Amino acid sequence: MKCRVCRGPAVVDVRRANANFCPDHFLRFCRDQVDRAIGEFAMIAPGDRVLVAVSGGKDSLAVWDLLLELGHDVEGFYVGLGIGDYSDVSGQHARRFAASRGLVLHEVDLPEEYGFDIPEGSRAARRAPCSACGTSKRHLFDRAAIEGGFDVLVTGHNLDDEAAVLFGNVLHWQTDYLARQAPVLPASNGFPRKVKPLVRLSERETAAYCIVKGIDYLVEECPMSAGNKHIGYKDALNDIELRSPGTKADFYFGFLRRAAEQFRSGATGGDAAGLGRCDRCGSPSEAELCAFCRLVDRATTDRHSRSVPPAPVEIQLGTTRSNEDPR
Amino acid sequence: MKCRVCRGPAVVDVRRANANFCPDHFLRFCRDQVDRAIGEFAMIAPGDRVLVAVSGGKDSLAVWDLLLELGHDVEGFYVGLGIGDYSDVSGQHARRFAASRGLVLHEVDLPEEYGFDIPEGSRAARRAPCSACGTSKRHLFDRAAIEGGFDVLVTGHNLDDEAAVLFGNVLHWQTDYLARQAPVLPASNGFPRKVKPLVRLSERETAAYCIVKGIDYLVEECPMSAGNKHIGYKDALNDIELRSPGTKADFYFGFLRRAAEQFRSGATGGDAAGLGRCDRCGSPSEAELCAFCRLVDRATTDRHSRSVPPAPVEIQLGTTRSNEDPR
Repeated sequence: MKCRVCRGPAVVDVRRANANFCPDHFLRFCRDQVDRAIGEFAMIAPGDRVLVAVSGGKDSLAVWDLLLELGHDVEGFYVGLGIGDYSDVSGQHARRFAASRGLVLHEVDLPEEYGFDIPEGSRAARRAPCSACGTSKRHLFDRAAIEGGFDVLVTGHNLDDEAAVLFGNVLHWQTDYLARQAPVLPASNGFPRKVKPLVRLSERETAAYCIVKGIDYLVEECPMSAGNKHIGYKDALNDIELRSPGTKADFYFGFLRRAAEQFRSGATGGDAAGLGRCDRCGSPSEAELCAFCRLVDRATTDRHSRSVPPAPVEIQLGTTRSNEDPR
Repeated sequence: MKCRVCRGPAVVDVRRANANFCPDHFLRFCRDQVDRAIGEFAMIAPGDRVLVAVSGGKDSLAVWDLLLELGHDVEGFYVGLGIGDYSDVSGQHARRFAASRGLVLHEVDLPEEYGFDIPEGSRAARRAPCSACGTSKRHLFDRAAIEGGFDVLVTGHNLDDEAAVLFGNVLHWQTDYLARQAPVLPASNGFPRKVKPLVRLSERETAAYCIVKGIDYLVEECPMSAGNKHIGYKDALNDIELRSPGTKADFYFGFLRRAAEQFRSGATGGDAAGLGRCDRCGSPSEAELCAFCRLVDRATTDRHSRSVPPAPVEIQLGTTRSNEDPR
């Protein structure tokens, strides 16, 4: 197996590109893919202040590293979700990465600052853990980006993630979701611009990037994700990709090129224009209280068997700089 | 396991309907599903003369039987494809079914009447066997329906078939195909009306129907279908269906209800209006010679190493009535 570029010994194969790469040219391939995604979808402009949502897993650490390599100005944001050991170890990976490079990592701890963790929030809301977790992370990421004055919020969603979400939306023809699925969501009415620079890289490639680059990431999957439908969708797409390399990318980018517009033209609203504000936290919201504040109420009422909702909480952005101490 | 209707011992479970059925009520369930599909999509009008494309497999024999049960006037049409033993045995099943019920079965034998079989046609056209086979069957089915004066051509495509085709079209966002995918194709400009009354029944259910009804069908898959992508798509959808019963039906009928129209409104032609005629056989065709006549030329030229195409061939509908003799 020889590197497509230099004919030296290759260590990674990228079957959909029909190419093998040596370590250096694989890293360059990854940078090129991210640079191309950023350019193609106008994700980040020169001089933008970028906040990346960091979990300590391969994708978020890879995208942070890649954006720095490409010369962007990026700080990290980590949310402690209170999922036992998993959260402890994921936080350590995020902090270690930031510390080793002298980067700014902001942190919010859900149990400490909002009085509940994801298992409690999930039980209280009677929803799947991934749903309570998604609500919490979206809210905290958005607020951190807006309140920190960042121009853009980056998440580590890769091609497999996006293709699996697309597959789920297509399986149930959720046309409103299909109208909104895109690698860039523009800033609007209280929401920050959100972008996914890893959409041109697969899960396997972001993992290989971390390994080749010596980035120590949290390998374990979240223990609460068992039964998550998107894992089944990823498996199904992986089976097909194995037989026909390139299908996953064709599915996702073909959607963006040839189909997304048809759903957008038929969409029934769903954008943020005209949204009100959450009475408590001021986030954009259709209801009096936003989904996150309602989750806080349910989770903390449930926990303390109180009938009165807790007092409003201000987001406190803790900052770790070159600091490996546990919080 | 008890029958949902009569509480007697059940023999078939239909997980997406969360129901078990005894033999009699399962047969009624199947009839109801077919009757509902026919009504919902206006497939067959009272008094229509119906031609069903028969392969000798579970789907075509089940749909023939079900249409008769529902009181329709149905004759069968069988194409001998020259795929060795597979074709010999499939023809026997089709003839035996017709003979045992005193039904009319028309037949065309591809090697006898056109001078090539599917393996030869596939090699000559340098296309996958399923492609040469599809071209041949579509052409011969359409002509048989038109020349026999039938009002409607029925095929045995079931829910799994349609969902797999939809999945393939979606994976590659073939928007023109998506615009045309429907359980009914109206008659137009030389093409007969084509309908799929089994779209509300899964593959497993049509097989169970035949078993319960004592219909002796050809169980073997076509030996040339190995590597066919739709088999992979079916496997992928079956994995998902197993975890979330009902997903396959939701995918297909959700498409028809909520998405198909958006592709049709954006479609760039592809309907038969304005098509010319094949110079040789008179079928609707965009080119001077239709796809089937071109296939005949390539296959027979290849076989006999001739440089001149063979003379035009008239379709001869052979008829078997209550007759089990091999042809």
